[in-house]
Amino acid sequence: MTGLFGSPLHVVNVGLASFGEPVVKAGAGLTHLDWAPPALGDRAVARDLASLLAHPKVEAANKRAFEAYGAAQPVLESVGTARNCVPGMGERTILYAGPPIEWGRMCGPVQGAVLGAIVYEGWAQDVGRARALAASGEIALAPCHDHDAVGPMAGIISPSMPVWVVRNASAGNSAMCNMNEGLGKVLRFGANSPEVIARLRWIEKTLAPVLQASLKLTGPIELKPLMAQALHMGDELHNRNAAASSLLLKRLIMALLKSGAPSADIAAAVEFIAGNDHFFLNVSMAACKAMLDAARGVEGSSMVTAMCRNGVDFGVRLSGTGDAWFTAPAPVVDGLYFAGYSKANAAPDLGDSAITETAGLGGFAMAAAPAIVKFVGGTPQDAIANTLAMTHITLGRNSAFTLPPLNFGGTPAAIDARKVVDSGLLPVINTGIAHSEAGVGQIGAGVTHAPMACFSAAVSALAALING
Amino acid sequence: MTGLFGSPLHVVNVGLASFGEPVVKAGAGLTHLDWAPPALGDRAVARDLASLLAHPKVEAANKRAFEAYGAAQPVLESVGTARNCVPGMGERTILYAGPPIEWGRMCGPVQGAVLGAIVYEGWAQDVGRARALAASGEIALAPCHDHDAVGPMAGIISPSMPVWVVRNASAGNSAMCNMNEGLGKVLRFGANSPEVIARLRWIEKTLAPVLQASLKLTGPIELKPLMAQALHMGDELHNRNAAASSLLLKRLIMALLKSGAPSADIAAAVEFIAGNDHFFLNVSMAACKAMLDAARGVEGSSMVTAMCRNGVDFGVRLSGTGDAWFTAPAPVVDGLYFAGYSKANAAPDLGDSAITETAGLGGFAMAAAPAIVKFVGGTPQDAIANTLAMTHITLGRNSAFTLPPLNFGGTPAAIDARKVVDSGLLPVINTGIAHSEAGVGQIGAGVTHAPMACFSAAVSALAALING
Repeated sequence: MTGLFGSPLHVVNVGLASFGEPVVKAGAGLTHLDWAPPALGDRAVARDLASLLAHPKVEAANKRAFEAYGAAQPVLESVGTARNCVPGMGERTILYAGPPIEWGRMCGPVQGAVLGAIVYEGWAQDVGRARALAASGEIALAPCHDHDAVGPMAGIISPSMPVWVVRNASAGNSAMCNMNEGLGKVLRFGANSPEVIARLRWIEKTLAPVLQASLKLTGPIELKPLMAQALHMGDELHNRNAAASSLLLKRLIMALLKSGAPSADIAAAVEFIAGNDHFFLNVSMAACKAMLDAARGVEGSSMVTAMCRNGVDFGVRLSGTGDAWFTAPAPVVDGLYFAGYSKANAAPDLGDSAITETAGLGGFAMAAAPAIVKFVGGTPQDAIANTLAMTHITLGRNSAFTLPPLNFGGTPAAIDARKVVDSGLLPVINTGIAHSEAGVGQIGAGVTHAPMACFSAAVSALAALING
Repeated sequence: MTGLFGSPLHVVNVGLASFGEPVVKAGAGLTHLDWAPPALGDRAVARDLASLLAHPKVEAANKRAFEAYGAAQPVLESVGTARNCVPGMGERTILYAGPPIEWGRMCGPVQGAVLGAIVYEGWAQDVGRARALAASGEIALAPCHDHDAVGPMAGIISPSMPVWVVRNASAGNSAMCNMNEGLGKVLRFGANSPEVIARLRWIEKTLAPVLQASLKLTGPIELKPLMAQALHMGDELHNRNAAASSLLLKRLIMALLKSGAPSADIAAAVEFIAGNDHFFLNVSMAACKAMLDAARGVEGSSMVTAMCRNGVDFGVRLSGTGDAWFTAPAPVVDGLYFAGYSKANAAPDLGDSAITETAGLGGFAMAAAPAIVKFVGGTPQDAIANTLAMTHITLGRNSAFTLPPLNFGGTPAAIDARKVVDSGLLPVINTGIAHSEAGVGQIGAGVTHAPMACFSAAVSALAALING
């Protein structure tokens, strides 16, 4: 000991950074190790967590859930109408993104989008009357996720809207998503002006029939190989879908030309698809939902099967806790804002698109998409670090989705809620940022994290189920 | 000294590895530093090199040449016929890849391709008669590079063939390249069967007119932004052009549909383009040639303006040595061979496509394309190492072509022949491998290096010019 204190000291400080300050002042070297106690120090949650760690039932359940996710084979099967394809979709139903929320608590963009959908459906003649109708409670409002569906940002799906139908060919379950409208004034950011409604009608009357006719010619398109290829072309399949959108267009183009649709309709459809680098996002989301739903309902599993946000609450579901949502306030995203906007203008995190991260894509696959940092901020090294960090909170790697910069290692996939609570590492999400007012649109993009409270609550609920 | 030999030794061995062996045997640690004397020990060349290093005239000339390369703005202007667009193209002329070579010394694939071109032009009725004609000397054979053109593999351009015309909008010079035929039995690998000739005719009669009509509608397409985008999507624009081919199709698709061509022709053109991930290669090559030709003829410059191979010789041109070629035997590529083939079946390195490396793309931009290693071998780390190594032999970085994995640093570009000879670091080339017999086609791909002897001879020639 005398020898130790006689030589130059270098101290490792674990946890609170302030404990290291006197060491530095005294002239010793210091390496700070960022650490927090499990469950961020919440003793009740930590006890629940301890009861689940290395629990044979949880381990076995997670193995089954992860295998079901990994075995999923999502195929793009068709384009149909929500009223026919979305289970339990009543005639006067509007689906929205995120966990359940009543009309009065909805954020601006979601309210604006609900009103737009009411006008689009013809249930009210204008936005003013639509507002009265929405407030009256006569329209059923429900989360997309409760109807085998997902939607980006406001995530609105109403009965007449066309949806992508993605089927998991290995287990038979299907997942639906609406069509991407492009950028600018669009329903998913809460815009509901006549041009927005007109575009929705064009998508319904022109784009969807052309796509549906084309998919009949191509037959079902296997999505995993296409998504894997896009990961090798710099996409992470959440905020960067440039390659996947091009690949989908290339897969469809001959069928589009031979679809028998009027040539002006074909030209308009091709122009719309070729002009939208986010076109594939909604297909990616449906594919991720189909892969994750295969892992739902495994008793005892702590695997996360959904993460989503409604602009007010962030919600998480576990495989082993049925249909329960575990929610916490949605964070405001600290990202790159477009000129003239700042965090003060931002709606809290919004949309079902975090289904991509839940499936090991988006922020989890950032290493494959170094150029994404020009959109969400940071450096390519940060992107790789984010992917590597996620290996500590996931059940495994998805060998179907390999990441070239990690020497073709699979993307970290299937979040284990226990590992999130134990490590304090939060799932990373690449996301667009919506203006807090309806209809202004996207004002930035950034990297955010799912809130810990969702995972703490989920772990406690799972512990209650397992420990009786 | 006594103290030094009393403590554990760790030795750095520079140069010959065998000198380190006794050190290891004696139990000491060893770090080997790979090093060779300048000009690989050739004293005459080393003296010539020494006369050019830090020479004010060479430095100033290289600055001018690099600026001309960097200022180039290649635009895809049109598709035309070789006889009209390629300067000095006589009616009975066939252009080939690489430095000058007479008929009798040509490798199998180039001879096969010349014969195919003779049949395609109708100068002989069959391959047998074409061979007699080629051997008679009645057909003028000349390098593409001597006619402002480039061609991949055999690189054959005959008068009736359509060519891409890429103009450097900043200096006014143009460069031409033939059309990519796709994979399989194709002229550029020396195949000359009726199906190959029929495809060439289809390219001439159907594809080229549709493309030309489309380009009239789009107007000239700026290539640098498109190529920069492809580098952010995993292409290196030599052996990986998947993203660039998709981007070009997207840029052309509406014009194709509105070109006024018969709809069956449009459909066939779209199918051909969408089915060929190498379609953009020939555009990339013409763009690189246009950028590099802007740097030609700067008195005193040691910048490399062309590297090319004819399957027998590897040739290099410098900006400051006029039209002279400096040649050495073309290497056989040590790469990944397709099943059933090996190095014993390979033609030596072939084609003008190393113009991409000369312009800072291909092997020089491998860092941007980690997935290329599945095609050419190695690991993504090797790809980054190759790009970084090239920074030691180039005049600068091209800020228009940024590489995300290098934190958006520009690609190393414009090889300085002095630096190659001084460092012993050879330009890295990603390349396809042709079978040595005409018409078998591609049998692999790999990473190879330009031979030192070309650069030694070029340095000596430049020294002779400068030192009088």
